[in-house]
Amino acid sequence: MLQLYIGNKNYSSWSLRPWLVLKAFDLPFHEIRLRLSQDAQSTFKRTLASIGVPTGKVPVLVDDGLVVWDTLAICEYLAERFEHEPLWPQDARARARARSICAEMHAGFTALRTHCPMNIEADLPDVGRRVLAQEAGVALDLARIAGMWGELLAEHGGPWLFGAFSIADAYFAPVCSRIQTYHLPLPQDAVAYQQRVLAHPAMQAWMADARAEKDFVGFDEPYRAGTGTAQGGAAAGQPAADDL
Amino acid sequence: MLQLYIGNKNYSSWSLRPWLVLKAFDLPFHEIRLRLSQDAQSTFKRTLASIGVPTGKVPVLVDDGLVVWDTLAICEYLAERFEHEPLWPQDARARARARSICAEMHAGFTALRTHCPMNIEADLPDVGRRVLAQEAGVALDLARIAGMWGELLAEHGGPWLFGAFSIADAYFAPVCSRIQTYHLPLPQDAVAYQQRVLAHPAMQAWMADARAEKDFVGFDEPYRAGTGTAQGGAAAGQPAADDL
Repeated sequence: MLQLYIGNKNYSSWSLRPWLVLKAFDLPFHEIRLRLSQDAQSTFKRTLASIGVPTGKVPVLVDDGLVVWDTLAICEYLAERFEHEPLWPQDARARARARSICAEMHAGFTALRTHCPMNIEADLPDVGRRVLAQEAGVALDLARIAGMWGELLAEHGGPWLFGAFSIADAYFAPVCSRIQTYHLPLPQDAVAYQQRVLAHPAMQAWMADARAEKDFVGFDEPYRAGTGTAQGGAAAGQPAADDL
Repeated sequence: MLQLYIGNKNYSSWSLRPWLVLKAFDLPFHEIRLRLSQDAQSTFKRTLASIGVPTGKVPVLVDDGLVVWDTLAICEYLAERFEHEPLWPQDARARARARSICAEMHAGFTALRTHCPMNIEADLPDVGRRVLAQEAGVALDLARIAGMWGELLAEHGGPWLFGAFSIADAYFAPVCSRIQTYHLPLPQDAVAYQQRVLAHPAMQAWMADARAEKDFVGFDEPYRAGTGTAQGGAAAGQPAADDL
């Protein structure tokens, strides 16, 4: 049985991607959730070290002793291992395009990822307004995302970026959640796609788990009132959910 | 004929990777070099826009009208298009590991990439010493690279990371150049591998072109004496090669 190591479902956008691929394609796997931590002595870091993960990060896929890290490598591995499942678009040219936008996300959209970290259970419209006013890069990232989605949905006819659900949709699922949390503006066709992603049964399952988690991690909470730093809030055993 | 759009060979570490894959495997392609620029009205930006590259970045591969951007997507596309060439390791588990370290490089090693940008024709031992003393992240990145290389060379017996030359070696080639430019310290087995990469005929060809280029770009020259900012040096038409 495949094992997927993930972080907190409320925060870990990278964990969400391969988890969503596995769930959406109904592939059997065992999920192992580790509480995110930057402390070298934490269960998180020690568990990853014990299975031979040199990066100290999630997600990690373990298959019969083989350790695969980094989201894109995990997705490529799954696409090969389940070669009869259309994890990537089946058409070679569409597949190349899907890989382009996933690689683009893998190393890009820094402003959006930095200023609007995934926080599924939070509702932060004020932060969204402030970030949009102060960080020009966030608007540029959103414009690129809206352009990309609009073009692909028009070209392939929807409902997903390349027609059928694929790794590419999983790759942009955390963006869909961020747009909801921070109330970020998008054109209508992009909003419709974002809502479809959020309504996907696999995404609904992840989000329900995230909301039930109530395990707040300071360094992933730059905007939670009263938390302040990595030392505050949940890190001190005092979830501050009421302050949201 | 495949067309690969690249930036200045002296600086463009991302361009180097797919170029090296194509050259090392003797795959036919036409190279189109664009002078790196951040100016929206530059030939660089206008050319990329005209072929439909939404990111405004190199490298870009064009194959019969299909535009593939982002290095990892280009490498995956080449591996599929030339499926009988061993661009990735042939063994499925080795291939998964190769993809893990490439994805790790694709989004990581930020300290090394930020503080020691590729600059093939430069020789900057003083900068290397200063960066190592001031930026703890650079030493951590180097330690991870040395550990990764040492483990893979021991496991597969060399001479390349996975035995035969693969995309993984191309992915770390810019690191080999940085280590030379900034005189960064490595364990002996890692130095031997770095020297093999630099001596590879395809890498030699790229480096010779880079040294002959003499086309200095201010924003890629944080350490060139007398250049100062993106507005100085070559941007003002005054290459400062003598100041190296």
